[in-house]
Amino acid sequence: MKNIWHGGDYSPEQWLQEPEILEKDLEYMKKAGINTVTMGMFAWSFLEPEEGKFEFSWLKERLDRLYENGIYTIMGTPSGARPKWMSDKYPEVLRVDDTGRRQRFGGRHNHCYTSSVYREKVKQINERLVKEFGSHPGVLLWHLSNEYGGECHCPLCQDAFRKWLEQRYGSIDRLNRSWCTAFWSHGYQSFDQVESPSAIGESMVHGLNLDWKRFVTDQTTDFARWEADSLREAGAGQPVTTNFMYDYQGLNYRKLSKAVDVVSWDTYPLWHKEKEILTARDNGMQHDFMRSLKKKPFLLMESCPSSTNWQGVSKLKKPGLLKLASWQAVAHGSDSVLYFQIRQSPGSSEKFHGAVIDHYGSTDTRVFEEVSQIGEELAILGELSGTGVESKAALIYDVENRWAMEDAQGPRNKGLYYHETCVKVYNAIKKLGFNVDVITMDDSLEDYQLVAAPMLYLYRSGIKEKIEQFVRNGGQLVMTYWSGIVDESDRCFLGGVPHGLREVVGLRSTEIDGLYDWESNYMVPASGEDGDRYECRNLCDLVSLHGAEALMVYENDFYKGYPALTKNHYGNGTAYYVCADAGQDFYDDLFWKVTCEAGIQPLVEGLIPEEVELTSRESDQYEYLFLQNFSQKPVTLEQKLLDCLSEGTVLLGEISDKGEIESYGTVIIRIIKG
Amino acid sequence: MKNIWHGGDYSPEQWLQEPEILEKDLEYMKKAGINTVTMGMFAWSFLEPEEGKFEFSWLKERLDRLYENGIYTIMGTPSGARPKWMSDKYPEVLRVDDTGRRQRFGGRHNHCYTSSVYREKVKQINERLVKEFGSHPGVLLWHLSNEYGGECHCPLCQDAFRKWLEQRYGSIDRLNRSWCTAFWSHGYQSFDQVESPSAIGESMVHGLNLDWKRFVTDQTTDFARWEADSLREAGAGQPVTTNFMYDYQGLNYRKLSKAVDVVSWDTYPLWHKEKEILTARDNGMQHDFMRSLKKKPFLLMESCPSSTNWQGVSKLKKPGLLKLASWQAVAHGSDSVLYFQIRQSPGSSEKFHGAVIDHYGSTDTRVFEEVSQIGEELAILGELSGTGVESKAALIYDVENRWAMEDAQGPRNKGLYYHETCVKVYNAIKKLGFNVDVITMDDSLEDYQLVAAPMLYLYRSGIKEKIEQFVRNGGQLVMTYWSGIVDESDRCFLGGVPHGLREVVGLRSTEIDGLYDWESNYMVPASGEDGDRYECRNLCDLVSLHGAEALMVYENDFYKGYPALTKNHYGNGTAYYVCADAGQDFYDDLFWKVTCEAGIQPLVEGLIPEEVELTSRESDQYEYLFLQNFSQKPVTLEQKLLDCLSEGTVLLGEISDKGEIESYGTVIIRIIKG
Amino acid sequence: MKNIWHGGDYSPEQWLQEPEILEKDLEYMKKAGINTVTMGMFAWSFLEPEEGKFEFSWLKERLDRLYENGIYTIMGTPSGARPKWMSDKYPEVLRVDDTGRRQRFGGRHNHCYTSSVYREKVKQINERLVKEFGSHPGVLLWHLSNEYGGECHCPLCQDAFRKWLEQRYGSIDRLNRSWCTAFWSHGYQSFDQVESPSAIGESMVHGLNLDWKRFVTDQTTDFARWEADSLREAGAGQPVTTNFMYDYQGLNYRKLSKAVDVVSWDTYPLWHKEKEILTARDNGMQHDFMRSLKKKPFLLMESCPSSTNWQGVSKLKKPGLLKLASWQAVAHGSDSVLYFQIRQSPGSSEKFHGAVIDHYGSTDTRVFEEVSQIGEELAILGELSGTGVESKAALIYDVENRWAMEDAQGPRNKGLYYHETCVKVYNAIKKLGFNVDVITMDDSLEDYQLVAAPMLYLYRSGIKEKIEQFVRNGGQLVMTYWSGIVDESDRCFLGGVPHGLREVVGLRSTEIDGLYDWESNYMVPASGEDGDRYECRNLCDLVSLHGAEALMVYENDFYKGYPALTKNHYGNGTAYYVCADAGQDFYDDLFWKVTCEAGIQPLVEGLIPEEVELTSRESDQYEYLFLQNFSQKPVTLEQKLLDCLSEGTVLLGEISDKGEIESYGTVIIRIIKG
Repeated sequence: MKNIWHGGDYSPEQWLQEPEILEKDLEYMKKAGINTVTMGMFAWSFLEPEEGKFEFSWLKERLDRLYENGIYTIMGTPSGARPKWMSDKYPEVLRVDDTGRRQRFGGRHNHCYTSSVYREKVKQINERLVKEFGSHPGVLLWHLSNEYGGECHCPLCQDAFRKWLEQRYGSIDRLNRSWCTAFWSHGYQSFDQVESPSAIGESMVHGLNLDWKRFVTDQTTDFARWEADSLREAGAGQPVTTNFMYDYQGLNYRKLSKAVDVVSWDTYPLWHKEKEILTARDNGMQHDFMRSLKKKPFLLMESCPSSTNWQGVSKLKKPGLLKLASWQAVAHGSDSVLYFQIRQSPGSSEKFHGAVIDHYGSTDTRVFEEVSQIGEELAILGELSGTGVESKAALIYDVENRWAMEDAQGPRNKGLYYHETCVKVYNAIKKLGFNVDVITMDDSLEDYQLVAAPMLYLYRSGIKEKIEQFVRNGGQLVMTYWSGIVDESDRCFLGGVPHGLREVVGLRSTEIDGLYDWESNYMVPASGEDGDRYECRNLCDLVSLHGAEALMVYENDFYKGYPALTKNHYGNGTAYYVCADAGQDFYDDLFWKVTCEAGIQPLVEGLIPEEVELTSRESDQYEYLFLQNFSQKPVTLEQKLLDCLSEGTVLLGEISDKGEIESYGTVIIRIIKG
Repeated sequence: MKNIWHGGDYSPEQWLQEPEILEKDLEYMKKAGINTVTMGMFAWSFLEPEEGKFEFSWLKERLDRLYENGIYTIMGTPSGARPKWMSDKYPEVLRVDDTGRRQRFGGRHNHCYTSSVYREKVKQINERLVKEFGSHPGVLLWHLSNEYGGECHCPLCQDAFRKWLEQRYGSIDRLNRSWCTAFWSHGYQSFDQVESPSAIGESMVHGLNLDWKRFVTDQTTDFARWEADSLREAGAGQPVTTNFMYDYQGLNYRKLSKAVDVVSWDTYPLWHKEKEILTARDNGMQHDFMRSLKKKPFLLMESCPSSTNWQGVSKLKKPGLLKLASWQAVAHGSDSVLYFQIRQSPGSSEKFHGAVIDHYGSTDTRVFEEVSQIGEELAILGELSGTGVESKAALIYDVENRWAMEDAQGPRNKGLYYHETCVKVYNAIKKLGFNVDVITMDDSLEDYQLVAAPMLYLYRSGIKEKIEQFVRNGGQLVMTYWSGIVDESDRCFLGGVPHGLREVVGLRSTEIDGLYDWESNYMVPASGEDGDRYECRNLCDLVSLHGAEALMVYENDFYKGYPALTKNHYGNGTAYYVCADAGQDFYDDLFWKVTCEAGIQPLVEGLIPEEVELTSRESDQYEYLFLQNFSQKPVTLEQKLLDCLSEGTVLLGEISDKGEIESYGTVIIRIIKG
Repeated sequence: MKNIWHGGDYSPEQWLQEPEILEKDLEYMKKAGINTVTMGMFAWSFLEPEEGKFEFSWLKERLDRLYENGIYTIMGTPSGARPKWMSDKYPEVLRVDDTGRRQRFGGRHNHCYTSSVYREKVKQINERLVKEFGSHPGVLLWHLSNEYGGECHCPLCQDAFRKWLEQRYGSIDRLNRSWCTAFWSHGYQSFDQVESPSAIGESMVHGLNLDWKRFVTDQTTDFARWEADSLREAGAGQPVTTNFMYDYQGLNYRKLSKAVDVVSWDTYPLWHKEKEILTARDNGMQHDFMRSLKKKPFLLMESCPSSTNWQGVSKLKKPGLLKLASWQAVAHGSDSVLYFQIRQSPGSSEKFHGAVIDHYGSTDTRVFEEVSQIGEELAILGELSGTGVESKAALIYDVENRWAMEDAQGPRNKGLYYHETCVKVYNAIKKLGFNVDVITMDDSLEDYQLVAAPMLYLYRSGIKEKIEQFVRNGGQLVMTYWSGIVDESDRCFLGGVPHGLREVVGLRSTEIDGLYDWESNYMVPASGEDGDRYECRNLCDLVSLHGAEALMVYENDFYKGYPALTKNHYGNGTAYYVCADAGQDFYDDLFWKVTCEAGIQPLVEGLIPEEVELTSRESDQYEYLFLQNFSQKPVTLEQKLLDCLSEGTVLLGEISDKGEIESYGTVIIRIIKG
């Protein structure tokens, strides 16, 4: 199907007693240009209302009717929420928290991923679903569970954790050394003695905490594979996905993504809380992260056509914003625009979450009209589906690094701002008109010209060697303070940091100063001449130079005159080292300088207006440029930029004669490659 | 006894070893004009020190001595705190929290209302109390327990809850539909599967949460009835009360009040935290709520003669404030001024709670002197006792509505401000010089000319029909945004809101926008002319008009020019719809306009000064006007007002020749009716 | 050994697999002038890796090698953290929290002090340590456990608590009366019924809470004695210490100090968070408290040579600060400068805590160099070791008073500021150039000329009589509001407060007003003349005078003109009573006035600059004056002061010709006594 999927989550089971509503749904979906829905998620109690008693007819009927009307289905497995009878009969399927309390039935996702009872029940229902619907022409894709997350500390999981550790470390001595259990006499004599981290037990052994998080990822991934295998073994031929969440810390998505064929995710930005362009950058970075997981198009699985109900303030989207955000997803590599949800549920916890069809139940609503416009626009741009994104620049944003850094008590327990720093780096590069891959330490650096690796506290996956090679081979590297500190088990490197890259950056970090929230320092030119002056906060690294050149120095405190930004030539490349937590203005100027000096070309020449995002996708034949104006006012492009763009064909939107893009406007331009 | 009760809680059991103190108490009480005390509350361990071993002689002696000295007794049942031996022997009397932890002995009120052991023990002690004191001439009233509250999740309560649900819904299918358990596969197959809400189980099914709260009210009410019945069946002829608390959310007092003959409550305003008049309004609204529960005089059961010990800051009452606040209670319908407490306890958690007689133990204190003055004044105004309050205006302030609204995740989880909005409405009407009934949806609207129903999110008790009739018959209705959203089970109405009243208000609410704390919009005249401009915050409803007229429109955002205040003629009445959360100034002007246009007359003509409260009580023969100056400065009344008042007789206080009421002054004027 | 100990905690067990690092350590320690280390703490799992299997050789080797290199050892007992095998085999050694949850293995100090299993295991390991190392010439001192703290609510502890209560009260009636259990029917029939305070049980009976805290101190002290006895009985001849913490609320250190021979403590001030002199005062007050516990030199057991890792912000010490702070400890009576830690641990929770030797592992660091300088300076001033401190002034700062005051709900639950008030009093006296003893109610007042007893809420240890005698005999007393309120069981005194001292202060406190955070009042001269005006906040006591003279009165509120500061002559002395929570400026002026009027002479004549601290130690022959400049700028001494100092010999630092002390400079002057 060479088109962009448009639609979203659909829960007909909530309306089985109102068949007239189900019919209206079909009519309205067609009116809105909807071609895809997700069904089955959270429907277990309707699919198997009693243990072993299955009912698929209602779903079959819906699937058929949708298909007859040209609407395809993403079929969800129902493992995200169990029926009540299951936990009543098999309490082991319920999670146990870190203090040993067995949870009760309620909410969702509160099942033990290790429980063989739960696994068998899931396998059985998945197999039955394949048997019923696996060969139905309306089924496009299988969607595993929903937003996997959370953890369980039950005896089964404790046991699995111990086996996992045994496999990882081989001997208990190696574990003891890696975790440094000599501290506070915490040494283990055998793997049997290990317990999961607990607020009423062990909580400060960083290696334990870190490995527990890895185990949770691996156990969840194993569960997801179990689900996928149960589908495939039962004969399902369609690809498999599961939906990820915004900046989720609970799992290493890089690993979980290996269990599925396609990455999809749920985006719920807080539009209109700050300037739209800032929200767009933050959201765009997540799009790029999701795309970079498999370096291929992803699916926007959920987004809200109106306002959510679970944020602090449920702000309405201003007219045009939904369309703008939907196109942003496509611009960054999504092959779908899907909503949570088609029809608003009439009760329970998400009853006020926005929907294409709300409680009012008619189509004369602002939201329905904007959704319909999106449907129309997507329909004419099916050629974008499947096109790729090429990036010269990469940002390393690694969740295991974050786990370790934020768990360790160190230079600033009140806030290290890893995420914020990565966002500043990302923004700076995007503003210059580059696509950016947002990668992890597991990824190759080979294809990039520019790599930013902020706060690379923990090393894993040979990152040290990859970075060294990258610079030696001519790459431009930007590193920062608080890098190269610990090994994969969070054990400190001895002998000076950043470990193993001191020659690459040409310096050694000697001490790091934590600043109170109300304190700041400044970076000023090392030359002593007048020039840019950048505020820095939170963390100030004191370095001794061994080859690097100081470009900027500190203005104040006892380390006045110490280097604050350095540059080092290494091999054919260059390594910059940022010593302190500087602001957006600093990073903007830094990356402009770095790319100019190295001659790395952005997507187009010319200055991109502050509130416009430029992104591209490409096929073998074409490059598609997306210009999106996130301002509430029209924005004017400069002539140089207009000249560049004029060689292409405008597929969507328009640039006016005066060179303007309208408020919240998206312009897509197709350029013939090469 | 045609007088106003003056006195308070008295705990002689704390002083049995110091008989000289007990004698001093009698002397001091008489000196202070005290005619009523409450005894027996929390005295169980003295009444039954060992299981089955009763000791009443100490209480008998106190009761006699007080009676001999002209002081009457409100006899408390001791169920508010158990003796230690009881929970040691019968752990089932202890509560279980929502996570399943059985509480230990301690505090107060931590007993299971369902436990038959506890009920039998309470019944037994109550019967014994009646046997001992039921025919004593000094006993005026029975006081059940103390400030009923809290909840228990023990197996007995779980079972009772399931039976309660079965009675309410008849079939599990009906429950499933009402609670929308289709969402997240939470459907029950039988009532046996239902568990109470729990932080480690089900917490987001709104219908469950709401019904649990209703069950808690019903179970508490049933317990209160059990107590009252045990007194009556043992032969007690006196009326029965129990004391309520300020704005208490844990129970539906409307239902609990059915178990008693007289409503009483405990008032502890934070005087001097903000302007006294604002505290007075807030407190006055609670007085009016308590009075409206039975539409007859209530009792002020507890108030603090000095400062409490449990608030964040224990501020002293400035001279005259205690008297002012005491008269405010009477003005709003109280037939008593009672304090917690006569003598300060020498130890434990409330040892620094203010008292008529403090640890110093003599009468030469500022507090004792003010209490004595109150005693003198009350003594000469016994005729007020039993007089009623007539209100033309009513405010619907419904706790079940609040439970539902604040539990649902919706347009603004950071704050909907239901209470604050009701207070603004109440203040606006009071300022104009009206008595106000503060009622629930269970009440009739028939006798009112003006009804305000802010944020009527949930419908129950035929409120929709009552409102429609009220307007049709000529009433003035003020509704607001976020009304008519859900039915009695918190299930959303379909087809447009405010459900069932769209014709009455002449519009449909289409969307509602949540504003961040730092955001605001403005209402401006729809005419486009210059005029009043009101800030609005938090929530902005977007409505489409179907008959109503827009009086004000929004000034900003994409809904600039959309209606912000509307008016609709319906039947013989008028319905106003307020679209956004506006400030006090808006409501002041609105109610002035509404009452003027409809010709509803306040208690007196003329402008009441900002810091003065005007209230009235009436007998068959007289109307009593209370003018209370809550300012620390004298306040001058305008001539028009003085003229109105001049026809009456001043019973207390004075209006000076210059037309002034003194600082913190209360003036009571008796006017012959008709 | 007539020298000052220099060194710190050393954990060779973390490096047993890297012998080259252990050798480097020796080399570096000598280079840094280190003569003392603490070993063995937290090494249990290396000393007894399996139950009953002991390994001392590694420690023996370290001890020998250190001794050969001139470095002595403080030998720690390992009871601060158990090996995993112990709690696995004997769960009773694990603590139970107040809600009944048995803790799991993890962290440190989470063992039951009552458990006989744990006591036996500790005794056994301690005995073995003495057997191995008791006669080693390198062992200077035994160090019990580490930072004793915490509490256990297990059945063994409950039982011990009941026995403790029985011993204290003799009869349950006396306990009931003392705790005022008549309130809320909490009376006990027997000691068996008592349970420890619990968040899910009894938490508001102040007497219970207070006695529980006393029991915890006594049980901990008993455990410490058990440890000390096990060492002594096994033949250890060295003295015994244990390390205390900054302003620790969990224990009454006055009692715990009785179990050891020498007091030592761990100091981790937040340098550079506010002005250094303020941090120095706060820290100096703790030094003085530790010294006053035994009225003899103490040991600085831990301090951080760099930044800690567990504070909110890990700020680097600016150059010179470490030296300044180290000398401050000596100035206040320490015979050591010890760090946590010699070598930074490579992993686990404190891996980023500063150390003499950091992960880099060489000596060319700023920190190592400053430590080495300290080593040099200390080496030349060994004569200070063992010298005493004489104080004319004492501040009563009593933890049991604080427990009671802060547990009681009273005039200001949002903050009474006991600690802050004591700090203000301490600062005011120090600024004038006095040494100050910081004592408890258990101490004698006989040797002082000036005693400050702020907020003496609870009386114990005959304090009332001691104060009365002190003033009668000519002492200068400064008391404040909220004094003399309760007896030792937190039961209120009747008949007027401050109990028993109304004649001494010449007044009665009648009421106390709590102020909101945003409120203040002012003290102005009672004479009505112009003069000083001091802001007061939080609490305002209203007093009636019975002999005292009002020096200042309130400026505002209904108590305008009421006394705010009073003075009363009693016997040969004078008693001042401060009615309200005034600022530092008020206390500065008050103590200047009090000492001038009474002719109490400070250490030297002349005005001490604001940012300089003056302290003294003395031997039979000499007085040693310490002048420390806590400013980042040089400070100039006035001529009068220079004249006084000129008679002495400068032992360290210098006063320049211009009379300046350098930034962060310490000057030590030796004066021949009398």
